[in-house]
Amino acid sequence: MPISPFNLYPDFNILRLSHVELVVTDLARSRAYYADLLGLQVTDEDADHVYMRALEERGHHCMVLRRGEKGEVGYLGLKVFSEEDLDKAERYFRNLDHKVEWVERPYQGRTLRTHDNFGIPLEFYFKMDRLEPIHQKYALYHGVKPLRIDHFNCFSPDVDASVEFYNNLGFRVTEYTEDESTGRLWAAWMHRKGGVHDMAFTSGVGPRLHHTAFWVPTPLNIIDLLDLMSTTGYLANIERGPGRHGISNAFFLYLLDPDGHRTEIYCSDYQTVDPDLEPIKWQLTDPQRQTLWGAPAPRSWFEHGSEFRGLETRLPVATASPIIAP
Amino acid sequence: MPISPFNLYPDFNILRLSHVELVVTDLARSRAYYADLLGLQVTDEDADHVYMRALEERGHHCMVLRRGEKGEVGYLGLKVFSEEDLDKAERYFRNLDHKVEWVERPYQGRTLRTHDNFGIPLEFYFKMDRLEPIHQKYALYHGVKPLRIDHFNCFSPDVDASVEFYNNLGFRVTEYTEDESTGRLWAAWMHRKGGVHDMAFTSGVGPRLHHTAFWVPTPLNIIDLLDLMSTTGYLANIERGPGRHGISNAFFLYLLDPDGHRTEIYCSDYQTVDPDLEPIKWQLTDPQRQTLWGAPAPRSWFEHGSEFRGLETRLPVATASPIIAP
Amino acid sequence: MPISPFNLYPDFNILRLSHVELVVTDLARSRAYYADLLGLQVTDEDADHVYMRALEERGHHCMVLRRGEKGEVGYLGLKVFSEEDLDKAERYFRNLDHKVEWVERPYQGRTLRTHDNFGIPLEFYFKMDRLEPIHQKYALYHGVKPLRIDHFNCFSPDVDASVEFYNNLGFRVTEYTEDESTGRLWAAWMHRKGGVHDMAFTSGVGPRLHHTAFWVPTPLNIIDLLDLMSTTGYLANIERGPGRHGISNAFFLYLLDPDGHRTEIYCSDYQTVDPDLEPIKWQLTDPQRQTLWGAPAPRSWFEHGSEFRGLETRLPVATASPIIAP
Amino acid sequence: MPISPFNLYPDFNILRLSHVELVVTDLARSRAYYADLLGLQVTDEDADHVYMRALEERGHHCMVLRRGEKGEVGYLGLKVFSEEDLDKAERYFRNLDHKVEWVERPYQGRTLRTHDNFGIPLEFYFKMDRLEPIHQKYALYHGVKPLRIDHFNCFSPDVDASVEFYNNLGFRVTEYTEDESTGRLWAAWMHRKGGVHDMAFTSGVGPRLHHTAFWVPTPLNIIDLLDLMSTTGYLANIERGPGRHGISNAFFLYLLDPDGHRTEIYCSDYQTVDPDLEPIKWQLTDPQRQTLWGAPAPRSWFEHGSEFRGLETRLPVATASPIIAP
Repeated sequence: MPISPFNLYPDFNILRLSHVELVVTDLARSRAYYADLLGLQVTDEDADHVYMRALEERGHHCMVLRRGEKGEVGYLGLKVFSEEDLDKAERYFRNLDHKVEWVERPYQGRTLRTHDNFGIPLEFYFKMDRLEPIHQKYALYHGVKPLRIDHFNCFSPDVDASVEFYNNLGFRVTEYTEDESTGRLWAAWMHRKGGVHDMAFTSGVGPRLHHTAFWVPTPLNIIDLLDLMSTTGYLANIERGPGRHGISNAFFLYLLDPDGHRTEIYCSDYQTVDPDLEPIKWQLTDPQRQTLWGAPAPRSWFEHGSEFRGLETRLPVATASPIIAP
Repeated sequence: MPISPFNLYPDFNILRLSHVELVVTDLARSRAYYADLLGLQVTDEDADHVYMRALEERGHHCMVLRRGEKGEVGYLGLKVFSEEDLDKAERYFRNLDHKVEWVERPYQGRTLRTHDNFGIPLEFYFKMDRLEPIHQKYALYHGVKPLRIDHFNCFSPDVDASVEFYNNLGFRVTEYTEDESTGRLWAAWMHRKGGVHDMAFTSGVGPRLHHTAFWVPTPLNIIDLLDLMSTTGYLANIERGPGRHGISNAFFLYLLDPDGHRTEIYCSDYQTVDPDLEPIKWQLTDPQRQTLWGAPAPRSWFEHGSEFRGLETRLPVATASPIIAP
Repeated sequence: MPISPFNLYPDFNILRLSHVELVVTDLARSRAYYADLLGLQVTDEDADHVYMRALEERGHHCMVLRRGEKGEVGYLGLKVFSEEDLDKAERYFRNLDHKVEWVERPYQGRTLRTHDNFGIPLEFYFKMDRLEPIHQKYALYHGVKPLRIDHFNCFSPDVDASVEFYNNLGFRVTEYTEDESTGRLWAAWMHRKGGVHDMAFTSGVGPRLHHTAFWVPTPLNIIDLLDLMSTTGYLANIERGPGRHGISNAFFLYLLDPDGHRTEIYCSDYQTVDPDLEPIKWQLTDPQRQTLWGAPAPRSWFEHGSEFRGLETRLPVATASPIIAP
Repeated sequence: MPISPFNLYPDFNILRLSHVELVVTDLARSRAYYADLLGLQVTDEDADHVYMRALEERGHHCMVLRRGEKGEVGYLGLKVFSEEDLDKAERYFRNLDHKVEWVERPYQGRTLRTHDNFGIPLEFYFKMDRLEPIHQKYALYHGVKPLRIDHFNCFSPDVDASVEFYNNLGFRVTEYTEDESTGRLWAAWMHRKGGVHDMAFTSGVGPRLHHTAFWVPTPLNIIDLLDLMSTTGYLANIERGPGRHGISNAFFLYLLDPDGHRTEIYCSDYQTVDPDLEPIKWQLTDPQRQTLWGAPAPRSWFEHGSEFRGLETRLPVATASPIIAP
């Protein structure tokens, strides 16, 4: 097994992925997509920002839309276990010679900005404004009824290196795809919060954000969203699905927002809190890893992603092609 | 509108489609597919036949598998309103100079065999052995939980001609696809029993049977079947779907049985009992007629079908291509 | 079997139940219940009326709310097969010495008003304004996503007499409850359109309307409605359910509107177009006829109903009590 | 708020609830209930034991049935984060003067047996035989398709005392019911693994096990189980539901096994990994805490439970009655 062991007792305690800042070129259009169509709840907005949360979340935001010149990603937000963990994180990243800075973020307490081994901007915090529960205010449920942010997936130019970096932070691989021709990792799914992943890496031109995923109640909510999108002018935003992933066993749908940021709608993966949970290995040549039912992913799914603001990308280390002809 | 009016008061009263005889090359293998995998209930069998019904049906069979040399279709069965309608049907088809004969069919009363305008073998009956209800014997439900046979779809070499023939029998068009380049019908959906169709016609090399459809409770049963098929050796039998049809609004999945006979799993169309229900027109160039969500059908879906035993096929009248590039 | 045979060839052809006029005391409040909460679509309204249809219906209305002094029922509407059937119906009811009159109803063609054997006001029509299809305008779907009106259920003072009357009109019993202590019918379900019923009769002080039912896509829509009602001020309007009926095998929920008119939300019954479909018999003492899963119906369900305007009720013929202690 | 803070850094790290040993009087009958009816997977069995796991679990067992003279509970099993945590746990309970012993349990590594403040037998372990994943062997899914054990609920004679004890072990209250008349806790839901609870306490004669819960994919699986039970001789085993809990927001069904051990079928609660997640408070007088839709729980639900083997029960501290008249 090419998976290096994860750090059972990392230097600081990352609780879960928390939120993403997406830069969008037309704030009203993107607000319509995420809030009116998908069903995220707007918690605040001004001329340049829209803050949103999903229906079972009590933190102020899981997504921040920021008006900008082009579609790109500002940063990935992660919540730590305590204020002390922020100080430990600062020391950890300084020891790595990664740039660290304390930044001001509305509705959040102390926020530490740094980056991962390939430069992906990460922002850690512990305190965020807590809002009243709305998960039983069923009049608010619409669209695909998003319950919570579930995970990020990023293109990495070297998945082995990304996995090693996040293993050290205490992320554990739950499933992975091996490129048999090289023995290298082609993709990996890594978690902190007890699901299949908080963060996944896919081999490709990177680092780029492949997608942000939201958890929904059942596959029927995904079918409802497809019916809605295909009859309200969003047909072209549907990229792939619906289907069942082999990897993660989740039911999925992939969408592209008006700036091309990819959204996954996701449900039905499994609990992973056991530290001795064995990772599941898949072969790059197995079409069922992509879709258990056999349907191949479109080429765009392997090639298109969102760049992080100000971050150069590079070609990936050589791998076999993941594209399976229909 | 190119749809000719249907006959409100046809010469005899066809109630609904009833059953199909499929010739299969390996009876055990096909029984495993229809009964063990899909969940049809075997009501009788011998060395050469398997009779099956779906879970809410009380007639003895909706499908008869017959052992044979090659995969082909024996006939399509239809139930009429009364014994008298059989005699009226005999007169009707004799007047058309179609061959008619009274045939012996196990578990059925008097059965009239004839054919449609392109030679498709049709067998009409009124009486069939009635079995005790099993729709509340939930221990029997498995596979995709098929509740009833829903419709046949046939390739026709001339859909306008097929529609005219069945209009005269009292079948009413509910939806249709027009080839704008020629003004001809490219496909039509026609019903007797109050759903979107008992019989549909698609332009193609024909006459051939395109598929036989079964009604299931909800889209989740279709998802369950996909999970089951893809993990029990039936991955290659999945041809298309799941998806929502534009035409009929039904949720669908297309499968191929071990001999290549196509099965549709189908739910969620609408009630059509009003005689003044206006047919819905679709353009051949509209990808949403195939799949509301935009996914194109594979080439095989337009080309592959099951021949009727002993019946020559012919090329269709010229039409534009229905195939939409992905 | 105490069920008299139905008339296979009735004097005129009733197609299906069509619509109901409910008299309500606060039009805005009732509109909020049926349109905003349940999801019926308003097709027209004025100071005294609200017209609504369900999502797959193309006729102008399946429910008419009319402002009045007290909650009661104006009439039950039924659609016939043709204009000629209206004239045949007129002759039929005149021969019975039932009062008949031609009435003006907005959005309808010729409309014949008469009554059944116990005085229930029935209005027959063939033509109603046809509206454009909205079943694929998924942005309109909300509440419980009602697709079509499904049936009426009435308290009858003598179910045997009601069944005989409707048998003569060509309604066929699909299921029935026998009071074993008397050998009389306690309840019966009768259809025209090919489902378990267009009209049901339950023994009780009558004639009164027990409920009007709407068909919805799946049981999950009913669960969604319960979540919505219980968190938006409609908790007290939930009367019974959710559950599976033994009789009809349908998944159900019973609600009471602001004037006490009962609504059933209903899905998953079965196709009944075969004229030789055997009625299913249930015993009054069998708790599973009410709810397959065993939960008893509340007392109100057996006692409360809506009176028809201007119509006296009478006590039912003696029967055993249907109430099963919890 | 009467909830004492939980211990963020407990002396040892409990990962999650793991398994229960139920003593049953007829092993074959109980095996039929849990394995054949509900769908748990038998992983081993001998003349006196049946070991079972749910479909996404890779540990050897989440339930052990043991043949005995009467229906009672052997112990509750919990998994810790590491072998070292077992030694820390031993010291912790010795310091409390609780009896501790190392016991032999098949398929498990070192297992520490002790008890909680009211004597509930708890068995801690880290290592259990790991089995191959079966969550994608869909041919095994049947019954209610149980995916994993979700939680225990116990009657406690003093919920405040139970909560304080488990708070010290690092369990955090997510929701609770306060008896306003006394200011005391009437019930509390406490978690370790990131859902609403691993362990709940309800005021009553105790300690007794109220129920063991299994997580299933969707509410439709619960409806399927109800249909199956009510038509295969298990009607009397259905105690309460289906419904939506106010507390936890979960969709539920309560069953009684052949010895009266209560099973909850459960889905759709929410993620609780944030250590700053505020507990949600409910009033004992609020009927919606029990069932969001208003239906009261039956008396048996408040009174019936399973005793722990050899453990005396006592009356609860005085509280108001939780029983809400229908």
